[in-house]
Amino acid sequence: MTSSIQRIGTTPRFSEAVIHQGTVYLAGQVSQLIDADISAQAHDVLRKIDELLTRAGTDNSQLLSAQIWLKDMADYPAMNAIWDAWLEQVKAPVRVCVEAPMAKPHYRIEVLVIAAQKA
Amino acid sequence: MTSSIQRIGTTPRFSEAVIHQGTVYLAGQVSQLIDADISAQAHDVLRKIDELLTRAGTDNSQLLSAQIWLKDMADYPAMNAIWDAWLEQVKAPVRVCVEAPMAKPHYRIEVLVIAAQKA
Amino acid sequence: MTSSIQRIGTTPRFSEAVIHQGTVYLAGQVSQLIDADISAQAHDVLRKIDELLTRAGTDNSQLLSAQIWLKDMADYPAMNAIWDAWLEQVKAPVRVCVEAPMAKPHYRIEVLVIAAQKA
Repeated sequence: MTSSIQRIGTTPRFSEAVIHQGTVYLAGQVSQLIDADISAQAHDVLRKIDELLTRAGTDNSQLLSAQIWLKDMADYPAMNAIWDAWLEQVKAPVRVCVEAPMAKPHYRIEVLVIAAQKA
Repeated sequence: MTSSIQRIGTTPRFSEAVIHQGTVYLAGQVSQLIDADISAQAHDVLRKIDELLTRAGTDNSQLLSAQIWLKDMADYPAMNAIWDAWLEQVKAPVRVCVEAPMAKPHYRIEVLVIAAQKA
Repeated sequence: MTSSIQRIGTTPRFSEAVIHQGTVYLAGQVSQLIDADISAQAHDVLRKIDELLTRAGTDNSQLLSAQIWLKDMADYPAMNAIWDAWLEQVKAPVRVCVEAPMAKPHYRIEVLVIAAQKA
């Protein structure tokens, strides 16, 4: 068993992705679209996740787990509409969604995923 | 290394369980027992987890990690009583518990677990 | 594929660390320094994580993922200063940070990490 770890987009504070033994961990993704509504922010967040999954050698068909935080649970239906469209062609991961304030007040959504690398 | 992923209870939005390389990820489990107290909801949630673990070829003796959200941290002692009884015959996973509003106002508890498959 | 699980610091309620297939899951770490500020609590929490990682046969150079909860997001910059210093010599894991009340009112921070064992 190897302990080799690959990292993508590493800053002194965090990595955007970390890969270990075929499992891909992504950093919590947020949107810098200030004043955007939940639909625009959710779409932006999922686009960032797609890009990171590609860089990690995988895609959203290989998702294992997703944690979603919403600033306001009133955004839940609109977030789900964007989420469901994102997964329309693939099989969905496990998921949990709770409400919480995030690092910046304009963040309406943050999404943390774990995925499998492609063989 | 295989990237094969097994899924259980998959809907367009999420899967109830996803299995990858011997690790079992379950969706956040909640209780639809509206107006039930924390004890009844916690018991219901852990029963659902038991059922999903069985379907995934494992059980609560193989838990690796548990994240618990409570609507009201005042429920912490009563939740712990149900939790401790659930794990009386087995060894406990790592755990974290914080307070957060969840997707529906009647949810008093949500639990997200990761487990190992049995050999 | 083995299902063998190693556990460290197991109580009837939770384990401080669980190791499975080279992946180390730590319990959410908090500080019992009542009335301490975020800097002191963050330092205390990261010290506890270092100790548990050592006991699990690894260290903070092997971190894969970190979830951070703050009681008050106003503590974010001070937490980051301690966090960044902790990782100064190593490569950072993926990370997410949200605000939430924790099990005890004096907890200002809780950190949940996943790491790789050393080869």
